[in-house]
Amino acid sequence: MSEKIGLIAGRGQFPLLFAQAARNQGFQVIAVAHRGETDPALEPLAARLHWVYVGQLGKIIRIFKNEGVQRAVLAGGISRGRLFTQFRPDLRALNLIRRVGGGQDDRLLRAVAGELEEEGILIAPSTLFLEELLAPPGRLSRRAPTPEELQDMEFGYQVAKEIGRLDIGQCVVVRRQVVVALEAVEGTDETIRRGGRLAGPGAVVVKVSKPQQDLRFDVPAVGLETIQALVEVKAGALAVDAGKCLMFNREEMLQEADRAGIAVWGV
Amino acid sequence: MSEKIGLIAGRGQFPLLFAQAARNQGFQVIAVAHRGETDPALEPLAARLHWVYVGQLGKIIRIFKNEGVQRAVLAGGISRGRLFTQFRPDLRALNLIRRVGGGQDDRLLRAVAGELEEEGILIAPSTLFLEELLAPPGRLSRRAPTPEELQDMEFGYQVAKEIGRLDIGQCVVVRRQVVVALEAVEGTDETIRRGGRLAGPGAVVVKVSKPQQDLRFDVPAVGLETIQALVEVKAGALAVDAGKCLMFNREEMLQEADRAGIAVWGV
Repeated sequence: MSEKIGLIAGRGQFPLLFAQAARNQGFQVIAVAHRGETDPALEPLAARLHWVYVGQLGKIIRIFKNEGVQRAVLAGGISRGRLFTQFRPDLRALNLIRRVGGGQDDRLLRAVAGELEEEGILIAPSTLFLEELLAPPGRLSRRAPTPEELQDMEFGYQVAKEIGRLDIGQCVVVRRQVVVALEAVEGTDETIRRGGRLAGPGAVVVKVSKPQQDLRFDVPAVGLETIQALVEVKAGALAVDAGKCLMFNREEMLQEADRAGIAVWGV
Repeated sequence: MSEKIGLIAGRGQFPLLFAQAARNQGFQVIAVAHRGETDPALEPLAARLHWVYVGQLGKIIRIFKNEGVQRAVLAGGISRGRLFTQFRPDLRALNLIRRVGGGQDDRLLRAVAGELEEEGILIAPSTLFLEELLAPPGRLSRRAPTPEELQDMEFGYQVAKEIGRLDIGQCVVVRRQVVVALEAVEGTDETIRRGGRLAGPGAVVVKVSKPQQDLRFDVPAVGLETIQALVEVKAGALAVDAGKCLMFNREEMLQEADRAGIAVWGV
């Protein structure tokens, strides 16, 4: 029988891509999907899928133990907004939060990973079967960035790394060396829309990984919706952290960028 | 004849309060007001008021020289959004931008102040006649912050200082040790509304001065609208940088906060 791999699925297409890639490589995907977050389209890609509420850590562990899962990945974030409004922590999660003191992403995720590993379930990097999706360096779109855009990318990159170092967000919108918008809980697309509207046409969007990023979780990603958000506000260019940022639907993404004359660049 | 004081007025009530206070102390206020930004209610408070477009630096200097102004203040910001969308730099402003390289608030403002001082117009701190408006430390509202809110204030204070150090924004919204929203160009009230909506009831808002803040310009300020934004999203508490943050309409502000059970605290 083929090896089982656990998938703790959050929102977006990342879990779907992971499940597809794992299956293509002959793994049986045992998925735990979060109600209100995970795309139900994951269901047919998994060998088995179990729905949980955000916060049911004890239940995730029981599911994996019952299924005999020994290795799992976390793919796709949980809207941090949901952690405040629709959070149903079970006893195990409550104990963890009490110990870790709640708070920032990485610390919490590292603690969650620790709990699973204590139970003999190893957490693997979520890029395990997806390395070919990491953004390459240099020009990716038909149009290259202008010297002014490159300067804004460099400036935005430094700021984004600082914000990332504080474990807050990974996206900034820049225009003429001014930071127009910073990401926190609202997410990348919302940040792009806000910044783009404030800056007017020609804004530069920079998305990076945190300097201390643990690739086991929360790998930054861009996709078609990212470009669509740029198009919506007539932004000029997108810079992504080469080798550290996943590009979903790269073909369609770049076609859409080319249609709109947007420069996409791996920093 | 009473001494003239120049007022380069941006948006909001800060220029109005400054003009009122200067007049009360026997000064003649020569105001330069920015179209689309400055409240026309400034007009009756000034001895003379001249309208300019955002970016007309040369014109401001000519106005002050013609009026014989030797000391001026900058009060009230310019929506940074306007710098991208409705900016009409004159030759003097263009030269300055070319030299400074555009960009961040402080550097640009410092350069503007430098241009004025070169022409013999000294830039005074905008708090000149308004020191009594600076927020005092400790409890300001009827309700004191809860221990959890105090913890969030302390955490938010540190983050806000980091963001301020990068010269980006001065306001953060925090909930249970998570940064929910960071201010950039959108302004404080918009940041509070976004963060409050994402965090749900009970968010903590922290507004600070930048560590390197030059009190000659861009003094952080809170007012009735700040509290109204908190009320709108059912935020729980507001922390302000004591001694470094102006409180406008303090009485009404605190009455409104008390009505809503909001804790206001000088950090």
